Amino acid sequence: MKKRFLITSIIALSSFASASLVEDAKKAGFAPIPNDEKALMKLVDNPKNSLNKAKVELGKALFFEPRLSKSNLISCNTCHNLATGGVDGVEAAIGHKWTANPHHLNSPTVYNAVFMEKQFWDGREPDLEAQAQGPMQAAPEMAISKEMAVKRISSMSGYKEQFKNAFNDDNITFKKIADAIGAFERTLVTPSRFDKFLNGDEKALSKEEQEGLKTFIAKGCVSCHTGVGIGGGMQKFPLVKPYKYAKVGDFKGDKNGMVKTP
Amino acid sequence: MKKRFLITSIIALSSFASASLVEDAKKAGFAPIPNDEKALMKLVDNPKNSLNKAKVELGKALFFEPRLSKSNLISCNTCHNLATGGVDGVEAAIGHKWTANPHHLNSPTVYNAVFMEKQFWDGREPDLEAQAQGPMQAAPEMAISKEMAVKRISSMSGYKEQFKNAFNDDNITFKKIADAIGAFERTLVTPSRFDKFLNGDEKALSKEEQEGLKTFIAKGCVSCHTGVGIGGGMQKFPLVKPYKYAKVGDFKGDKNGMVKTP
Repeated sequence: MKKRFLITSIIALSSFASASLVEDAKKAGFAPIPNDEKALMKLVDNPKNSLNKAKVELGKALFFEPRLSKSNLISCNTCHNLATGGVDGVEAAIGHKWTANPHHLNSPTVYNAVFMEKQFWDGREPDLEAQAQGPMQAAPEMAISKEMAVKRISSMSGYKEQFKNAFNDDNITFKKIADAIGAFERTLVTPSRFDKFLNGDEKALSKEEQEGLKTFIAKGCVSCHTGVGIGGGMQKFPLVKPYKYAKVGDFKGDKNGMVKTP
Repeated sequence: MKKRFLITSIIALSSFASASLVEDAKKAGFAPIPNDEKALMKLVDNPKNSLNKAKVELGKALFFEPRLSKSNLISCNTCHNLATGGVDGVEAAIGHKWTANPHHLNSPTVYNAVFMEKQFWDGREPDLEAQAQGPMQAAPEMAISKEMAVKRISSMSGYKEQFKNAFNDDNITFKKIADAIGAFERTLVTPSRFDKFLNGDEKALSKEEQEGLKTFIAKGCVSCHTGVGIGGGMQKFPLVKPYKYAKVGDFKGDKNGMVKTP
């Protein structure tokens, strides 16, 4: 970590002499969401759960499906609300029977979550498909059993056909429910002006924003907030100095104290 | 009531001699959702809150807006979920901090609610615009104050322009928030094969369904379930004999014991 921080700083200091800020940003570890559709599809796809239109549509319906919770009231969208930035806007996620997350963790956004190296704040799952299985079953979240989820979804004839179209097989399983949700989430990609900039359009960022980027690199923010989507790797936290609210809740990261960078 | 019931029965008994079941159904009090767009717009419009596209779009956004609740977690769509028939699928509505409706009342659907003569189970409000103000403020529902609702919505610049387009005035008030939501709800109309039938297409209902309709008229169901949308007027309940679950909760209807027909 320390070594990387130093390298980053050296790059930043030499940036005025270099070809362009775009090049410097790339050298510092940033990568754009590809402009090219084929390259983008390759980046977001999961070979073990390949995307197709029917699967994404099914996953969208299931993402908004409150019947995937024990109470019938909570959907994925309750905490990962697509209308409010993919999150719920509260300090600690609220789930089944208004239970707050016991570790005082908040809901990470689903937007661009596909670019994260691992899922959950402690990085315990490798991908969105594995992640989607967690909140459905977690007692303080959607609190449903695998069996009840499958029973509920199977009871609605419309879903039968959607599964057939998505998976070429109308047998509904919990894994397929999660796979469809994961497939939908892989499409929640929001390229920004920063991606346009990294893709070579130097005018996509204002002068002020470009100065900000230089500072972001020079101060070492880029040590953690890097890659496609500016984050998503596992890092120590707090990194530089003690964090005032670090003791709210009991979350300490994974067994090595590593936390997923937002 | 009794007189109407008798008249209905007489019509039913004479139906085999009459011109058509469509005519009988109309005589029994059913009315179709109009086929004609102009007639439909006239039927669903509120002269005091005239519909326009911008207002309906704004109302749609506000209907799904969880920031209209104190917790930031509950929107109109939480209880009147458009993906699950306009309701939440639970016995008693669940709101702020997982509080169940204190009278054990469930959420009526917003679909076709525009055709109801009055709003709320006790019919205490005249229209959807007045209704929309209630749940936002109710402590066991969305629990927000008028002031907080206006402050939250005003803090988002996008809404400013939407109010301007909808009301020709970008001043955001609680009444306008409710008016926009009401306008959106006026568009939640779902004509069915039964409406097609009432509009003259006798083949729109199967033979079995037509027999069901005759029974529905003959047995007097039509005394309460009538008009456009088959209900929405105020009626005594229970009407014919004591209802097993009538004592769940403390709801007795309005001051005359009248209840809105679903």
